Amino acid sequence: MTGGAGEGRISGEDLLIARLFEPIARHPGALGLKDDAAVLAPPPGHDLVLTKDALVAGVHFFPDDPPASVARKALRVNLSDLAAKGAEPLGILLAIAIPADMPAEALEAFAQALGADAHAHGAPLLGGDTVRTPGPLTISITALGAVPAGTMVKRASAPPGQAIVVTGTIGDGALGLCLRREPGRPGFAALDSAGREFLADRYLHPRPRLALAGALRRFASAAMDVSDGLAGDLAKMLAASGVGGEIEAERVPLSPAARAAIAAEPALLVPALTGGDDYEILAVMPDHNLDAFAATATAAGIGTTVIGRTFAGEGLLVRDGEGAPMDLGAGSFSHF
Amino acid sequence: MTGGAGEGRISGEDLLIARLFEPIARHPGALGLKDDAAVLAPPPGHDLVLTKDALVAGVHFFPDDPPASVARKALRVNLSDLAAKGAEPLGILLAIAIPADMPAEALEAFAQALGADAHAHGAPLLGGDTVRTPGPLTISITALGAVPAGTMVKRASAPPGQAIVVTGTIGDGALGLCLRREPGRPGFAALDSAGREFLADRYLHPRPRLALAGALRRFASAAMDVSDGLAGDLAKMLAASGVGGEIEAERVPLSPAARAAIAAEPALLVPALTGGDDYEILAVMPDHNLDAFAATATAAGIGTTVIGRTFAGEGLLVRDGEGAPMDLGAGSFSHF
Repeated sequence: MTGGAGEGRISGEDLLIARLFEPIARHPGALGLKDDAAVLAPPPGHDLVLTKDALVAGVHFFPDDPPASVARKALRVNLSDLAAKGAEPLGILLAIAIPADMPAEALEAFAQALGADAHAHGAPLLGGDTVRTPGPLTISITALGAVPAGTMVKRASAPPGQAIVVTGTIGDGALGLCLRREPGRPGFAALDSAGREFLADRYLHPRPRLALAGALRRFASAAMDVSDGLAGDLAKMLAASGVGGEIEAERVPLSPAARAAIAAEPALLVPALTGGDDYEILAVMPDHNLDAFAATATAAGIGTTVIGRTFAGEGLLVRDGEGAPMDLGAGSFSHF
Repeated sequence: MTGGAGEGRISGEDLLIARLFEPIARHPGALGLKDDAAVLAPPPGHDLVLTKDALVAGVHFFPDDPPASVARKALRVNLSDLAAKGAEPLGILLAIAIPADMPAEALEAFAQALGADAHAHGAPLLGGDTVRTPGPLTISITALGAVPAGTMVKRASAPPGQAIVVTGTIGDGALGLCLRREPGRPGFAALDSAGREFLADRYLHPRPRLALAGALRRFASAAMDVSDGLAGDLAKMLAASGVGGEIEAERVPLSPAARAAIAAEPALLVPALTGGDDYEILAVMPDHNLDAFAATATAAGIGTTVIGRTFAGEGLLVRDGEGAPMDLGAGSFSHF
């Protein structure tokens, strides 16, 4: 981990910051963050799967989010991409641009949480860069994973006539974000504190579905993670694959908390279906694979739900309980 | 390339931005930047070499630097790390956090220059993320390279009793930065416009020594790139290796422009020896390898110079023309 390009020597303060990350970089290939680069022997016969997501304070997370939560989210959104591609994690690289007013304790909490979470997910910190910024805290993580050669699950390979499946429950992250912004909405007033905490936690802490990586390779024709909202992400997958699809809103799996909030305030169904931060897996697979996929997921404690089908054609149709096309809001339609 | 985590759907404007990068991502593994991840078959029998440097406007480059130069620098500082490790580039991932007031033309110039420079260096854009920031333009590039298994040239492996070698000339980047900040200094007044342009260009456009990757693997015991200043970086390498070293300031290779500036203003020798942005290679190798290394470098049009030796012990001694220890300034000594 270098102190960054261009500005001459590293200050004592910056050295201190960089050293916060050294204890969490225990993989031998990280070389204690003391070299120009990390080194890693990729598993023979495998392809590398590479993803990189950046998060900016005030844009992708709240500036007052706990630093440990920010670290976990920055890591997990990347691991979620790996999971959706059927990849097993190999490691991560971190770039962090640190504002001058970020307290040392906050940075320490970030580093510790990142280290613990990376270890728990089998994605060791291999290297990166710590720099100063006059702007907001900005984090970029690159995650490396591996799949047996030729088996990465793509987004653009969904055939017509197959089932559209999602894991877990949809909308919790988006409702957690709504709750954070507008806690007084009637849908949230209808929840008990456990329900509110569940939604808030789902917004803060994505759960990358790495346990399903192998099953996705075996059973799915196409997959992606749901990061920008179910409807929009599914529309992207269909368009990339050159097929159409339809889903029934009533079949979209909701958590008890989301269901209760939407029952009390039906308008919350729209953010649940179109808002981001689910980090569940959206997959298309042949009907004859559904049971085996569901069995693997169940064994991992993850639910799976068939929400619709692909067809020869184009576009995404979302049907309501009466089978009529749903209006998901003008702002949404422009992207579906 | 996703639109980033957390804030729901991507705006039309963000889609436009992401699409700027699609034409430069022509490697098949980039999947047109339309999937969650990139896929790459690593060369069999090789180790991966991974590096990640972040650059922030106003910290690592001037906000008014040409966007094309910023793109080249962001790329090349990473490729310089690969070169110093003896690695051949495989590709890069880019995260760019874009301020709202960055003109579309500037972003287009950035993307075009990045694409052309990445292609020229054999380091194709494989993926990444484009996000918005309320702060300064922030760029993080992850570069992937490969070396035959077990041959990465490390920083911490310099033995005692070997030659300390640098490539090219030292101090041009640091003097280019001084020139940018204090153009009226007497050292710069002594230069003609070609000399000033040379220094300014060396600050803006590092030249990663990828042509020497193979020779470093064959001939060097240890190496790193000089990004934070020759004296400080050499001190780091010696400390990491558990050896001492001494160099003679008069043997440090200077460009004609740097030599002329320092002749007119001797105080400029200190930033030349301690300032950053050289992006040359600093290597330690046995005497019997020096000729072969120099021959390979010469064939690639790159100079090499022996500037000192390692010894059993610790610390870095920089000797002046009379052999006396040089004072490189109080701020510097604290790190040597």
